[in-house]
Amino acid sequence: MQLLKPRVYADAAAATPLSPRARRQLVRLLSIYGNAGALHREALAAKRELESARERVADALSAHMDEIIFTSGGTEGNNMALGGSISALVGEFGPVHAITLAIEHPSVLEPLRAMALEGHIELTELSVEEDGRLSLEALKDAIRPNTALISIQLINSEIGTIQDIREVMKLVRHEKRSRTSRAAELPIYVHTDASQAPLWLPLNVEKLGVDLITLDGQKIMGPKGVGALYVRRGTVLQPVVFGGGQEKGLRSGTENVPLIGSFAVAFEDAQKGVEARAARIADVRDFLMREIAQNIPNATFHGVMGEWRAANNCSLSIPGLLGDMAVLALDAEGVAASTRSACGSDTEAPSHVIMALGRGAQTAREAVRLTLLPSATMRDASLIAHALKKVVQRYARVIE
Amino acid sequence: MQLLKPRVYADAAAATPLSPRARRQLVRLLSIYGNAGALHREALAAKRELESARERVADALSAHMDEIIFTSGGTEGNNMALGGSISALVGEFGPVHAITLAIEHPSVLEPLRAMALEGHIELTELSVEEDGRLSLEALKDAIRPNTALISIQLINSEIGTIQDIREVMKLVRHEKRSRTSRAAELPIYVHTDASQAPLWLPLNVEKLGVDLITLDGQKIMGPKGVGALYVRRGTVLQPVVFGGGQEKGLRSGTENVPLIGSFAVAFEDAQKGVEARAARIADVRDFLMREIAQNIPNATFHGVMGEWRAANNCSLSIPGLLGDMAVLALDAEGVAASTRSACGSDTEAPSHVIMALGRGAQTAREAVRLTLLPSATMRDASLIAHALKKVVQRYARVIE
Repeated sequence: MQLLKPRVYADAAAATPLSPRARRQLVRLLSIYGNAGALHREALAAKRELESARERVADALSAHMDEIIFTSGGTEGNNMALGGSISALVGEFGPVHAITLAIEHPSVLEPLRAMALEGHIELTELSVEEDGRLSLEALKDAIRPNTALISIQLINSEIGTIQDIREVMKLVRHEKRSRTSRAAELPIYVHTDASQAPLWLPLNVEKLGVDLITLDGQKIMGPKGVGALYVRRGTVLQPVVFGGGQEKGLRSGTENVPLIGSFAVAFEDAQKGVEARAARIADVRDFLMREIAQNIPNATFHGVMGEWRAANNCSLSIPGLLGDMAVLALDAEGVAASTRSACGSDTEAPSHVIMALGRGAQTAREAVRLTLLPSATMRDASLIAHALKKVVQRYARVIE
Repeated sequence: MQLLKPRVYADAAAATPLSPRARRQLVRLLSIYGNAGALHREALAAKRELESARERVADALSAHMDEIIFTSGGTEGNNMALGGSISALVGEFGPVHAITLAIEHPSVLEPLRAMALEGHIELTELSVEEDGRLSLEALKDAIRPNTALISIQLINSEIGTIQDIREVMKLVRHEKRSRTSRAAELPIYVHTDASQAPLWLPLNVEKLGVDLITLDGQKIMGPKGVGALYVRRGTVLQPVVFGGGQEKGLRSGTENVPLIGSFAVAFEDAQKGVEARAARIADVRDFLMREIAQNIPNATFHGVMGEWRAANNCSLSIPGLLGDMAVLALDAEGVAASTRSACGSDTEAPSHVIMALGRGAQTAREAVRLTLLPSATMRDASLIAHALKKVVQRYARVIE
């Protein structure tokens, strides 16, 4: 007799548990209570841990230590990257043009839209291909002489599509060269929200080539409430939080050493063996998708398959089964899933990401996102597929 | 033979250690990793803890749960209160007038100055009396027909002066009444940065009467990287962080349940028996000040004595001994002290607070702040006084 139902957590894109190493680091650092801005021994102990964490993150990214700004998480990182760069650009050049994708996270879209409403920027929200991939042609056409900021998420939070940032950078470098020849001095800053990426893709700032990268602790087996923003040397940001001038004036507020130290360990661990981890979990995910396709023939999968998809992401819609309904029923069956990005789950509107794929509002309302943890096994995949089958049999209104 | 020198931490105004209960709560909640915005069991567990923390903070303040917004700390709370209210006011009424004190924390002064530079507000930075107390006459004179925001710190971070917020509210209510009779609809929001207060003063939103209160975890035996903003019902704020719409849209970003839960416990504990704690520590502090006055007759104490001073604060300048020098030498003698607010310690400028008391730049550069923990004893006070005496004998250039 089985008393405890096995439970599978498949909402890693919303939040992950703390890894044992990140947890140990956090708990150890709870005793480091000094304010890193002061001069005494307790403060120096805090400063030492802070700089050691900064070195750890910089090393894992192949970046310089002075390019790492610690933040309170992905949302703040995105707000700081976009608000901070636009403030600086507008201060020097007046209103500029910015480009982003229609499928970005709310913490990118909302600040950009707010700045557009205030007249600081003209904003182009590029639509994407049916599989969620950016069209480089469309991006090329969208770039204008006054384009100064491009923000493109590395891995989409909902459908797991990976964007080809290196090709984006080629376009941008080409545009920059043509501008230099016209003696224009307006930069083009490229920002990528890489919150979903560290467990699944190697991140190297030289190879990526972008100017600004957002990282988030809770998505990478690290703690909530902490993250980092990579700011390439030469990229000028205005502060969006004002105060004591910590973190090079960009992020005032006492540095949160326990969370920062724990985040740094989680990020380092995420990047260690990332390719092997991604290959292993992609196998599990592929098995999961095959099982689902077999059990539920009318399920529609979203996003692209193969190398341009995050290893842990499975996104689908099941005709006749609302996503919220599916998530609640899956929960009762022992599977934690979600309909989309948790940021926005309180609202009734269908997923803006699925809508942007051109699939229609009904399909968007039927979206279910399954995102696996690094520890996921074939057995987990079986359990999820089995639970989903039961849920469909019980609750779907029409199975064709 | 004494191998380990006893050490006294007297920089509680910069940061406190975690209390055992706050630490236990934090560590317990590290296992609650769900994203409170999702729908599954892990998310609901997070949401439950989040709302239980909100209830705890609201109860301790005699506030409503929907008036508590969790933040990433005091700096963010101040930025949100000021930036959020000014955005909302300016959106409705155009540029308005704001009043603050010249001795406020940088996380109040800097955002207000930035908004003044951008033309959103006219800003009056009121000077204070020699003892750091606000002159109610001066405030009365400063209030204009278009004054819409007043921000006054409850306990000054450096010199421990308590401002009489209830008298401020009487003035404001009087002004509001006169405005209503002129049918003016412009509100006057009153904000107080109470970061330094919870361990030493009872905080009751009905008695205080203000609209916005900033709280900070790390000052109250709670964790770093978390705090709360009290927002009275009817007070309209615009978001300053954009994204998933958490915390009533004011503070997007996944709610940090472990830190929030730990903060709530620390705040509850801070308010429990606050009067008895303040009385006990005031005795220790008074003894410390008597000892210092006896040992170092030319020391100048800053701030006011008696009921309008935070129980744990001793602020002084010693002629001929630079504050930074004193802090470093005290550290070597086993006492953690500071020159002023840690936010800004990296800069060379003399304390703007001591300058505002009219004591001159030299005295400001000689400022030393000793702020006791709730656990401080008479023996701690003796050790501090003794260490300071040794430091003065060794390093002060001239002792009159």
